[in-house]
Amino acid sequence: MGFTEEQIFPHATAAAAQTVAKHQDPQDAVFYAGWFCPYVQRAWIVLEEKGIPYQYKEVNPYQKDPHFLAINPKGLVPALEYKGRAIYESLILCEFFEDAFPSHKPHLLPLDPVDRALARIWIDHITKTFIPSFQRLLQSQTADKQREALQDLYQSIRKFCEHIKGPYFFGEQFTLVDVAVAPWFLRDWSIEEHRGYRRADASPKWKEYAEQVEKRPSVVNTSSLREHLLDIYGRYLRDEAQSQSAKAIREGRAIP
Amino acid sequence: MGFTEEQIFPHATAAAAQTVAKHQDPQDAVFYAGWFCPYVQRAWIVLEEKGIPYQYKEVNPYQKDPHFLAINPKGLVPALEYKGRAIYESLILCEFFEDAFPSHKPHLLPLDPVDRALARIWIDHITKTFIPSFQRLLQSQTADKQREALQDLYQSIRKFCEHIKGPYFFGEQFTLVDVAVAPWFLRDWSIEEHRGYRRADASPKWKEYAEQVEKRPSVVNTSSLREHLLDIYGRYLRDEAQSQSAKAIREGRAIP
Repeated sequence: MGFTEEQIFPHATAAAAQTVAKHQDPQDAVFYAGWFCPYVQRAWIVLEEKGIPYQYKEVNPYQKDPHFLAINPKGLVPALEYKGRAIYESLILCEFFEDAFPSHKPHLLPLDPVDRALARIWIDHITKTFIPSFQRLLQSQTADKQREALQDLYQSIRKFCEHIKGPYFFGEQFTLVDVAVAPWFLRDWSIEEHRGYRRADASPKWKEYAEQVEKRPSVVNTSSLREHLLDIYGRYLRDEAQSQSAKAIREGRAIP
Repeated sequence: MGFTEEQIFPHATAAAAQTVAKHQDPQDAVFYAGWFCPYVQRAWIVLEEKGIPYQYKEVNPYQKDPHFLAINPKGLVPALEYKGRAIYESLILCEFFEDAFPSHKPHLLPLDPVDRALARIWIDHITKTFIPSFQRLLQSQTADKQREALQDLYQSIRKFCEHIKGPYFFGEQFTLVDVAVAPWFLRDWSIEEHRGYRRADASPKWKEYAEQVEKRPSVVNTSSLREHLLDIYGRYLRDEAQSQSAKAIREGRAIP
């Protein structure tokens, strides 16, 4: 596909670059990240929300160093080394930060057990329907497939919107549901410019919700310049991307 | 496909029937279940482990009553109505029982936050690799596809086995990792008899682990007679099953 790792801009920019600069000192929590990755951004938002001390380490996903592969055999970012032990998977990291730092406010899961379960149900909805149709829309090369993916995406969004209390999903409390979807509000310009997606066409409530979430400081402070994402998203739009999620979508498998 | 709902035996049998009989009185927690469903059994094992008061209600998944569909629009079992509010998804229900009944022992998640994250990582491994290859093996109709699915299944199991401490996944403590996989130990006779799978071929450690998990009282007490599962598994083995997971596997989509 003519893709080489040099084409990924090597580090965070804009507000995210300042956040990285503030987190260079050694800490118990070492956060292995890629500035461009939406899954990384989820865990990163939680670290910022809760003011957890962490050391940020940028990983080139196409040129991984041996220490990183030793701690995370799956080789995926985000990953965390905590007091010498390694864990990974974005949503599991988000729950870990809640479990391991209970005195760090705000709590990002509702305290009521039924609401906690509902938070997990709607995060699961994002994982199983929103992200796969977003990715299929991005990578589809024919008008028919794009139309189908856009309809699936709108359907997923509208179901989610029925349950948004506003301004955030659970009302005034910012939770892991908002965290789980936030990174895609920084990236949906790609399907707006090239695939006919409009936030307001999905639902006016979605547009309003997206605008609330994307201006949250923890979201802004983990976001880089759009121009450096352009190279990456160009490859997705031409269906040339070689990430594990891109390959899974191309082959009709579930995103790993 | 010639399948009618009458072909599903209508209620639990053996030890599971006695468990159902003990849980008929109205309670705050109403458990909507299907005696034959492995996902139901996960949540049911947790209810039994923790001694949580619940009312068991058998749902015919092909003939759902309106009240059930009102509380769970996805129409899937297991589902729980708790003080009038509805939640669903087997793993989310398992976590809910931990959250909502903290004084009910045993705890089914490790207390150490890193171990809790590892528990969720290996549950995720079961969800993303073990169950899909098990289902593909069951439904595949050609020798080539069966061979491929069996290899995928063994690969998934061997990776998991590297981390089993014995007798249970985390050692002496029975946890949600064991719960997540347990129902498939009551059903792997189907791929042993018809698809060449052998527990010991996957790994001797797997065989030993399976034998520990399947004799746990909460597992035994939520299990019905194999003969009534035969009808259901016959349909899977001929790839005629019409459940949502069967359709997803047939179409190469992720299990919903």
